[in-house]
Amino acid sequence: MSTDLMSADLMRSGLLRAGLPSFEQICDAAARIAPYATVTPVLRSARLDALVGAELHFKCENLQRGGAFKFRGACNAVWSLDDAQAARGVVTHSSGNHGNALAMAAATRGISAHVVVPEGAVRAKLEAIEQAGAVLHRCAPTQAAREAMAAEVQRQTGSELVHPYADARVMAGQGTLVLELMRQVEALDALITPVGGGGLASGCAIAAHGIDPALALFGAEPLGASDAAQSLARGARIEAFTADTICDGLRALIGEPNFEALRSHRTQVITVSDEETIAAMKLLWRELKQVVEVSSATVFAAVLKQREHFAGRRVGLVLTGGNVDLDALPW
Amino acid sequence: MSTDLMSADLMRSGLLRAGLPSFEQICDAAARIAPYATVTPVLRSARLDALVGAELHFKCENLQRGGAFKFRGACNAVWSLDDAQAARGVVTHSSGNHGNALAMAAATRGISAHVVVPEGAVRAKLEAIEQAGAVLHRCAPTQAAREAMAAEVQRQTGSELVHPYADARVMAGQGTLVLELMRQVEALDALITPVGGGGLASGCAIAAHGIDPALALFGAEPLGASDAAQSLARGARIEAFTADTICDGLRALIGEPNFEALRSHRTQVITVSDEETIAAMKLLWRELKQVVEVSSATVFAAVLKQREHFAGRRVGLVLTGGNVDLDALPW
Repeated sequence: MSTDLMSADLMRSGLLRAGLPSFEQICDAAARIAPYATVTPVLRSARLDALVGAELHFKCENLQRGGAFKFRGACNAVWSLDDAQAARGVVTHSSGNHGNALAMAAATRGISAHVVVPEGAVRAKLEAIEQAGAVLHRCAPTQAAREAMAAEVQRQTGSELVHPYADARVMAGQGTLVLELMRQVEALDALITPVGGGGLASGCAIAAHGIDPALALFGAEPLGASDAAQSLARGARIEAFTADTICDGLRALIGEPNFEALRSHRTQVITVSDEETIAAMKLLWRELKQVVEVSSATVFAAVLKQREHFAGRRVGLVLTGGNVDLDALPW
Repeated sequence: MSTDLMSADLMRSGLLRAGLPSFEQICDAAARIAPYATVTPVLRSARLDALVGAELHFKCENLQRGGAFKFRGACNAVWSLDDAQAARGVVTHSSGNHGNALAMAAATRGISAHVVVPEGAVRAKLEAIEQAGAVLHRCAPTQAAREAMAAEVQRQTGSELVHPYADARVMAGQGTLVLELMRQVEALDALITPVGGGGLASGCAIAAHGIDPALALFGAEPLGASDAAQSLARGARIEAFTADTICDGLRALIGEPNFEALRSHRTQVITVSDEETIAAMKLLWRELKQVVEVSSATVFAAVLKQREHFAGRRVGLVLTGGNVDLDALPW
């Protein structure tokens, strides 16, 4: 059962804001979230530069509120609602960073958030979501059960669904990090983000090309969840697959609008094995001194693997999050 | 055999620059190292603030060149030399961050660095020092052997000894981080640094009180190496002790000028157990997303332990370094 089927359902029901955001909407999002989001630093490392033979600029979204870029999109969605909508709250289904981000974003506006979580989700993550003030709704660990529960919560509360990635408001929010990065670093030649559902990659593509249409765009995807790479290769979106990767943030099927954005912005997706990602993660911890989660490390693994694309260039790498179980490191 | 005896020897031989730096010398140091050192960011965490009930500003020297504040002092010492002295190079004995920092600082001036290291030192650290271009001199793992070897290298090469902490140039360099911090954060009420040999604590005390004589100064020391706390309590410096702590950066006996600086600047030293430090380290990794070494975590452990000193105040905490063996974390 793929995330796609849910998106199709929701699109039919008219509940999903599925189109792509414009560059202007990303600029509006930046203004909208500015009072709440952190302007994250950009870090560099002479050793990592030397290793790749490029000028690497790491955008540290592990230092974003909630420890991940997801707060940007959730915050933009929450503050895009009119007062009547807002009063009815927001809902999503995610046991990961998006659920936590939506809970935190709702708290900034003082509105209710409902997060549907499957039985068996990591307890620490659920505690964080509850601590942020959201109401948890437990359901069976299947996609169908999650959607049914989210729909039920919507019916009961009138709350607004904020999809983790196939939502223009969310994509616009994620894209704001590129506006920041391109103010912090002049004349980037290339940008690379991880690709999961594609909310980040698509928002960043639109933002980057809104500023510099010549900027080269790359995505990094685990070999065990390379649906975006395969979809781009065959020119049409794969509609179902089974993820097999340690990168828990990148297991989703790429969304339909997200795929269209990657295709139209000529994003090249590089696939990396989990072993390559874990080695890259350790290097980032050691040299950059940043706690980043495994999904974040795919971008550096990809740059190391295909350095011919990056050598001699000024490259932005988005480190997406730092929510790691310190008692279960992958090395 | 204590570091103190070595200092006394060297002072008698006129080789050690043992006095305290003035505030002006710290300002000069800041200008001197500016082309080479990193202006490190100051990070915050709403959760850690809430935990302590204070406004915590973490100065991230784990992001300094070489992964530790030590580069500041070493760089100031190297660039304080006149050309004739510089041509003969520099020498120190340290298998830790100072050895690496001196090697890196010497490289910025294109001069030779000699680092005396005891047999049995961590191989990764020695490789880093060699990679930075220094000449390693191995000796038996006793303080006497280290000093003898350093003296021998000095005789053979005419190189300048740069002591890790009982050196005014080094103290002045370490103090520059406070000039930065107090530009980055207005109206700090209190500052806390770890205390080992005291180069950092003394340089920071002079810098801080040069700007704001009312600023409250704190040090954090492992219970198993609490010579500074004991020395301050009895009003005279302990001259020998045996360290027993996991905090490898804080095992040195406090230097004589360093002790005088702490005493005259009314620095209050808080002692923390290794267990408290490890718990604080994990919290810093989890909430601040920073890879910091165990010695760095003493400051946060001290603030957590004696929060009555800090509640409601704006506190600067110096995270001294991030050079950690990721395969041997202490939890």
